[in-house]
Amino acid sequence: MSGTLYGLGVGPGDPDLLTLKAARLLGQVAVVAYPAPMTGDSLARRIAAPHLAPGTQELVLRISCDPARRDDDGYDSGALQVAAHLEAGRDVALLCEGDPFFYGSFAYLFARLADRFPVEVVPGVASVMACSAALAHPLTARDDALVVIPAPRPEDEIAGLLERAEAAAIMKIGRHLPKVVAVLKRMGLADRAVYIERAGQPGQRICSLDTALAEGAPYFSMILLHKRGKAWN
Amino acid sequence: MSGTLYGLGVGPGDPDLLTLKAARLLGQVAVVAYPAPMTGDSLARRIAAPHLAPGTQELVLRISCDPARRDDDGYDSGALQVAAHLEAGRDVALLCEGDPFFYGSFAYLFARLADRFPVEVVPGVASVMACSAALAHPLTARDDALVVIPAPRPEDEIAGLLERAEAAAIMKIGRHLPKVVAVLKRMGLADRAVYIERAGQPGQRICSLDTALAEGAPYFSMILLHKRGKAWN
Repeated sequence: MSGTLYGLGVGPGDPDLLTLKAARLLGQVAVVAYPAPMTGDSLARRIAAPHLAPGTQELVLRISCDPARRDDDGYDSGALQVAAHLEAGRDVALLCEGDPFFYGSFAYLFARLADRFPVEVVPGVASVMACSAALAHPLTARDDALVVIPAPRPEDEIAGLLERAEAAAIMKIGRHLPKVVAVLKRMGLADRAVYIERAGQPGQRICSLDTALAEGAPYFSMILLHKRGKAWN
Repeated sequence: MSGTLYGLGVGPGDPDLLTLKAARLLGQVAVVAYPAPMTGDSLARRIAAPHLAPGTQELVLRISCDPARRDDDGYDSGALQVAAHLEAGRDVALLCEGDPFFYGSFAYLFARLADRFPVEVVPGVASVMACSAALAHPLTARDDALVVIPAPRPEDEIAGLLERAEAAAIMKIGRHLPKVVAVLKRMGLADRAVYIERAGQPGQRICSLDTALAEGAPYFSMILLHKRGKAWN
């Protein structure tokens, strides 16, 4: 009998924001797997670290973000390694920052394994919710529409989405910050928006768009805005 | 010194999906408060029940959903009762289904209390993430845009949002189901959408839009769709 693959949401960064279910499963599975860049640590593993049981086997899946390696980004070989454990009857928990199905790399392993093995997804606290909590401002209320927009999208698409909703979360900011800020300023929304990174974690940073522009933004950062909300800055 | 108000996300329904932080705070605070309808039980309290410490004082906030009572819906008197505990130095955890700032009634109490008392929001797993986990289908991947749309919105606004995103969650379905299904059918999206209620809980129900139309939908239900995803039905 094959093992079960758990897509385990470990939440937005604070190890205290794992769910009870995720923490319990971490102590039960034979193998804990997690994606990591080609060199360096896994963020998901760092979040889960306080809850790992001693003696649990760990499997690092090295994933390349280099567009030149798109055909060999590591997911195929990662899936093979996970499959070997599942075939041998060992349960595998695949750690996912935030929620596994909300922009998670889990989707790529799910696509390669779900037709052959039992899979259970354990939802987690998503980064958007951690950001609104850290900002102490409701993300949505009443009948607000919310749009979640990855910053790499073209300007006109970002603007078209922002036009139609009361609230927005623009994710994966990184080098797209100047473009996003330009769109928000053109639409008169910049003073309703705030930049945030590492919500609820050591090194949390909350600032205006102009400050972020001056200092730069990593990939894992977000701009939240609410049209009806008080000005953020 | 006044007490702290905790906006405590208790997650989408499964008591196992509380965060470690929420479960711990439930055992520490002097008072646990929760909204409930004028008659009947509180869903948030039912989710948190296994984690309530014996002897914790409970405060039921009776909230009216009757539009005729809009000026006296219960939030003013609820805020007064919570404030009395905070003024007396007692910490209060206000239980919120899902995430406190994601369409949560916590926003109404936050608006009445946040300028006078220390408030901390503990984010929770949102219903949208529980639904995509239960459906075993990624909500978003890559640079998908996601729109979250309350079903009471007018048809043309729902259509305008759906046009521009790859993924959508339409919430608070209830009596708006026929309107929402009509929009989805007109846009050719009905076979990419699925109806779900009670995700991850006893009584979970996942079905096609036509089946839902025939059988009806409660307020707490959702339609998820992904334009790129495999057909759901």
